[in-house]
Amino acid sequence: MKFVDLLDRSITKNHSQLCIGLDIDLEKIPKTIASGKNAIFDFNRFIIEATAELVCAYKPNIAFYERYGTVGIEALLKTIELIHEHELPVILDAKRGDIGNSSDAYAQAAFQYFKADAITVNPYMGKDSVDPFIKYEDKGVFILCLTSNPGAADLQNKPPHPLFLTVAEKVKEWNVRGNLGVVVGATKPDELKRVHDIVGDMPILIPGVGAQGGDLEAAVKNGGKRAIINASRSIIYAADPKAEAKKLRDAINQCK
Amino acid sequence: MKFVDLLDRSITKNHSQLCIGLDIDLEKIPKTIASGKNAIFDFNRFIIEATAELVCAYKPNIAFYERYGTVGIEALLKTIELIHEHELPVILDAKRGDIGNSSDAYAQAAFQYFKADAITVNPYMGKDSVDPFIKYEDKGVFILCLTSNPGAADLQNKPPHPLFLTVAEKVKEWNVRGNLGVVVGATKPDELKRVHDIVGDMPILIPGVGAQGGDLEAAVKNGGKRAIINASRSIIYAADPKAEAKKLRDAINQCK
Repeated sequence: MKFVDLLDRSITKNHSQLCIGLDIDLEKIPKTIASGKNAIFDFNRFIIEATAELVCAYKPNIAFYERYGTVGIEALLKTIELIHEHELPVILDAKRGDIGNSSDAYAQAAFQYFKADAITVNPYMGKDSVDPFIKYEDKGVFILCLTSNPGAADLQNKPPHPLFLTVAEKVKEWNVRGNLGVVVGATKPDELKRVHDIVGDMPILIPGVGAQGGDLEAAVKNGGKRAIINASRSIIYAADPKAEAKKLRDAINQCK
Repeated sequence: MKFVDLLDRSITKNHSQLCIGLDIDLEKIPKTIASGKNAIFDFNRFIIEATAELVCAYKPNIAFYERYGTVGIEALLKTIELIHEHELPVILDAKRGDIGNSSDAYAQAAFQYFKADAITVNPYMGKDSVDPFIKYEDKGVFILCLTSNPGAADLQNKPPHPLFLTVAEKVKEWNVRGNLGVVVGATKPDELKRVHDIVGDMPILIPGVGAQGGDLEAAVKNGGKRAIINASRSIIYAADPKAEAKKLRDAINQCK
């Protein structure tokens, strides 16, 4: 099944445009879980089993797994398997991108080894760095457009024709297989609208509403029907992750 | 020891500005090695032991290890250990970059888990995505500036003030700890000169002279005293990697 169909299915089934970011941090998880042998996977299982009926996707950021070496990699593999048992899509947040043969190896890692359904990709190196991901027609490829962090102003958002608009235009041009999406931070709602006007109903991954403090209502209104609102730390490290996820899922729906 | 001192030491000791890219591909390595249990590490050991007196650094691109999962990760760890036994620096080619707490996790992976001496970083997300790497004062941080691939023209090299020049200016500004460097492809010698004029004697990692066909003489002349000329496939998959490395090392020295 194509990524966009997987996504539409879970949006409809769970009545949800909420994506939970699985950004594991062994120092933040409950001590009873952290002391176990499979702490990373056990914590993710706890989160997934509590929230699988409330989300349209999960987004593990691979950075948080890589730092634990092979232990982290194995836990990520098992986490993705578990998410698939719940028939939900996995967006591997990896922000990869390199010359052709290296991007090809990254795509193998993401799609063949980890079996992710979608990946985030950095556009800095241009079309031939993105193509090796796009050629997996059933997989989703989210191109970084305008990110949620302060540093986005350094290169992405400089007048007269900001780089993020050029990227959005390129993404539209590159979308010959219909499997592209973009990443735009919830901290930039006006710019989100400009990107949505360019890319139309492509999936738009929108981080930045939780710990980063973006504007939820504007993000939902300006992101369109495949806006994927991501929250990570604000849900998974909440006292009651399920209640927190339900609250955000419902708040998203009320903004529509 | 600071990365730049490690680099200067190996440049002097081996009279070499050659860096070998360890881009492992099990389908290209000799069958006698590929059939063994530790094929990835065994091949790298074969390359490193043949060339350790001819290079100033090694550059494993992590993409080629990730695709082999935990087996690849373990082989990369052992490879870095072996390079350190030869007292040579390791540039982990990872092209990472994310919002602060995620970049922080990537930096932990690169510098604490893998124990790399330097890393390549993508500047698209701006200063706060680069800072978590820079704060490791003894480590080198190479920012992608103008890459060697055709897609570099899509975003990096558009008039009137091309993005790669903005990046070079930012890198100069961000270099408060003296541990930054840049990546500029050998396929763009005139632009390399412009970057060198901005960043001065920072290390400049220059890929693209081997399989990608860049201009060696211009790269050496325009890259300055810390130009690091990288070749990967053209050396490691040559019939005689040692002879090929020596030929390129000597050719670099003759261009000066």
